[in-house]
Amino acid sequence: MSDTTPEQIDALARAAARAHEALLATDGAERAGWLRAVADSLDAAVDELVQLADQETALGETRLRGEVARTTGQLRLFGGVAEEGSYLEAVIDHADPAATPPRPDLRRILRPVGPVAVFAASNFPFAFSVAGGDTASALAVGCPVIVKAHPGHPLTSRRTADLVAGALQNAGAPEGTFALVEGYDAGLALVDHPAIAAVSFTGSVAGGRALHDRAAARPTPIPFFGELGSINPVVITRSADESRGDVLAQGLAGSFQLGAGQFCTKPGVVFVPRDSTVAEKLPSLVGQAPHRMLTESIAAGFHRGLEHLSQVPGVTVVAGAEAPDDSAAPVVVRADAATLAEHADTLFDEVFGPLTVLIDYDDEQQVTSALSNLGGSLTGTLHAEDGDDVGDLVAALERISGRVLFQGWPTGVAVTWSQHHGGPYPATTSQHTSVGATAVRRFLRPIAYQDAPASVLPAALREENPLGIPRRVDGVLQP
Amino acid sequence: MSDTTPEQIDALARAAARAHEALLATDGAERAGWLRAVADSLDAAVDELVQLADQETALGETRLRGEVARTTGQLRLFGGVAEEGSYLEAVIDHADPAATPPRPDLRRILRPVGPVAVFAASNFPFAFSVAGGDTASALAVGCPVIVKAHPGHPLTSRRTADLVAGALQNAGAPEGTFALVEGYDAGLALVDHPAIAAVSFTGSVAGGRALHDRAAARPTPIPFFGELGSINPVVITRSADESRGDVLAQGLAGSFQLGAGQFCTKPGVVFVPRDSTVAEKLPSLVGQAPHRMLTESIAAGFHRGLEHLSQVPGVTVVAGAEAPDDSAAPVVVRADAATLAEHADTLFDEVFGPLTVLIDYDDEQQVTSALSNLGGSLTGTLHAEDGDDVGDLVAALERISGRVLFQGWPTGVAVTWSQHHGGPYPATTSQHTSVGATAVRRFLRPIAYQDAPASVLPAALREENPLGIPRRVDGVLQP
Repeated sequence: MSDTTPEQIDALARAAARAHEALLATDGAERAGWLRAVADSLDAAVDELVQLADQETALGETRLRGEVARTTGQLRLFGGVAEEGSYLEAVIDHADPAATPPRPDLRRILRPVGPVAVFAASNFPFAFSVAGGDTASALAVGCPVIVKAHPGHPLTSRRTADLVAGALQNAGAPEGTFALVEGYDAGLALVDHPAIAAVSFTGSVAGGRALHDRAAARPTPIPFFGELGSINPVVITRSADESRGDVLAQGLAGSFQLGAGQFCTKPGVVFVPRDSTVAEKLPSLVGQAPHRMLTESIAAGFHRGLEHLSQVPGVTVVAGAEAPDDSAAPVVVRADAATLAEHADTLFDEVFGPLTVLIDYDDEQQVTSALSNLGGSLTGTLHAEDGDDVGDLVAALERISGRVLFQGWPTGVAVTWSQHHGGPYPATTSQHTSVGATAVRRFLRPIAYQDAPASVLPAALREENPLGIPRRVDGVLQP
Repeated sequence: MSDTTPEQIDALARAAARAHEALLATDGAERAGWLRAVADSLDAAVDELVQLADQETALGETRLRGEVARTTGQLRLFGGVAEEGSYLEAVIDHADPAATPPRPDLRRILRPVGPVAVFAASNFPFAFSVAGGDTASALAVGCPVIVKAHPGHPLTSRRTADLVAGALQNAGAPEGTFALVEGYDAGLALVDHPAIAAVSFTGSVAGGRALHDRAAARPTPIPFFGELGSINPVVITRSADESRGDVLAQGLAGSFQLGAGQFCTKPGVVFVPRDSTVAEKLPSLVGQAPHRMLTESIAAGFHRGLEHLSQVPGVTVVAGAEAPDDSAAPVVVRADAATLAEHADTLFDEVFGPLTVLIDYDDEQQVTSALSNLGGSLTGTLHAEDGDDVGDLVAALERISGRVLFQGWPTGVAVTWSQHHGGPYPATTSQHTSVGATAVRRFLRPIAYQDAPASVLPAALREENPLGIPRRVDGVLQP
């Protein structure tokens, strides 16, 4: 398959626009059925999918099998969200002729925005790719999806797309509900196309920012929901290091080397007290074997980032091995808080891959001060002991992160109602991303109906509540 | 008072950033008290405020007195929203060690984004100005506000700001919670300032789009919530015209001339069946007296827009009187659907002021086709009779509007939980605006807490629900 041509993009976008009209008449239960059909279809093909993806990404069978399960679980979760119906935010305020001025009958609901362009990520060939959270959340609420495939795993993308399209068709979804496109220019053409109503993206700061700016510069700007980059700082208090430094070193070693560090939630900077057990033990827990990276440009970025770091005066590489150009071996870099204060730009520059930066601090005020110079991050982690006075540290982590973890490691993102995978820029360019139930909110817009006859109201807003969904009526929540 | 200097902007933005930190520790009930104190203070000064505003805007005492009441009612409504607490979207998922992978305890809540820059509108010197919906909704959820005053009513703005600042201070709000700035450059400096976390705006397409682009182009982009322009199409079916054309002509005359047409919801284009009673009667219901417009540039825009319209072949001015440069007299312009199809750019270009365009149609397919060429609009209105087949018309209006009205007129926007004042671009640049309870959502960002000890959790997320707010626990809504 070659790159999708401009003519093909145009035809697919128009088909998606037609599908949007048809999808307006569907309800959550119907679409939940489609998502379950897609999930079943992917689960049934798991062996083939994992084999393809392992060839293309070298992420290993165990991880990839788990990722397929996560992906299909996510499709089912979003099906459940669509079915439950509170995502519609149905609100009814009955008329009040006695009010000044008299108040009309007013009913509000969220409706699908229209076709969504989804840019797949390289590092999750299933969960953040063709059938990932963006696709699942958009389809769940009735938005057609056109996925721009990531060039790092084209075969996996095409096979997944075939399965998704087949399952949707068999389940009765309108033609044009789903499509896959390939090629750099195809992605730009999608963002520019008048029929596209929103863009979602997971990837690098440079690529994401360019698309963000492009979406904002259209004659009709459209929202861009991007997850771009994240340092994921970890803070270890002195008492935590003293009481369980060994365990923490092991946990950190596992987290930053997981999947060759190719996670957006990889702990990139770890604040440790001076002369810590964690810093002492960590180098011995670091592997030597190089791991092939997802793409050549990711591998090149890793080597470039490591080179920049090692040129900073005061920075020492305390663990690391040579690796071929297309690979990376785990690396630990170490500096102190004074060096960080002077070279924050380099030390806080995300290196995607198995690398973490240890920062020795003398007092926690150095940590809170350093955190205030860090851009937004998906996560912030604190390891402390009962009795530690952590108020300032927690506040500093809350200020820059979307998820604050205690006694854990940021890799691993549970897919639940309460999850938030986002953070101040550049972690994300928006409040919501592809993980967690509120991901659907990105693809909805409100419509209020004033004094509408029941015959034209969406079912969710009819007096008798035929869908049985949670609503707010005359100001009161009715679950 | 002269324009706010760059140094003053910087000092105010820094003070707002400090206030943001202090506001994080406040709860909804506390802030509701502040908003009520502000509302009481404005109500107590209503005579003085109305007199000032009438001098500056010529909107008349009745309208302005009503607008103050609406403004203070809105402050109290947002206080109630803060107090009720569902806006926090508190979600708790308890740990599930038996899940694969084991699921941590995860709790999610919305937190204030930080200082908000509010650009006041000219046409509502109270409800969309210094103490309007943007200010009320931002303060309600704990975001400091810096208002950029509209130059159309500086005295009203300053006096209102004094009252707001005084009431907040007396009620115990932190220093830096509220400020007013003046001047074009001051507005730009606000949008650029690193401490500003979001911008809200009500005004013209040109001005709003420039600020939208500027907010998106910052090193750290911030969300821009703009309400820009709207045509507010109205469709009258043949049977509605036949059964109550006289009443409809009167309703339309009242709606488009209200406040000299200086409403973002003014009906700008009205589709009437050929040889309609509405078109026949409307000219006789149009006033002759010129009305001083809010600003000279609005008046100039009105005269320019009228000139452009009258130069279109096929367009007739069927009612209208001369008016001095700073004023406008009501105007009705008429064309048919074929002319509209050829000159949609001009005929669908919003003319802010007392002007409406009647479009004679022969069949409803001309109407749906014309609507599909219209950009987004705040409202779309249908006047039909029982038995009319309105499915296509309603669908066409839903596609382009944020509020669909039946048998009413779009001027007049009830402030309720169910209201939505927004629409596809250029009506708004975002899903939510300053009207309706969801206005608060613009100024919030999610944070998830993973395995957090109770001592660091926000009160809303503690197990015992000390605030007594609605939450979702383990997937189930608990109102």
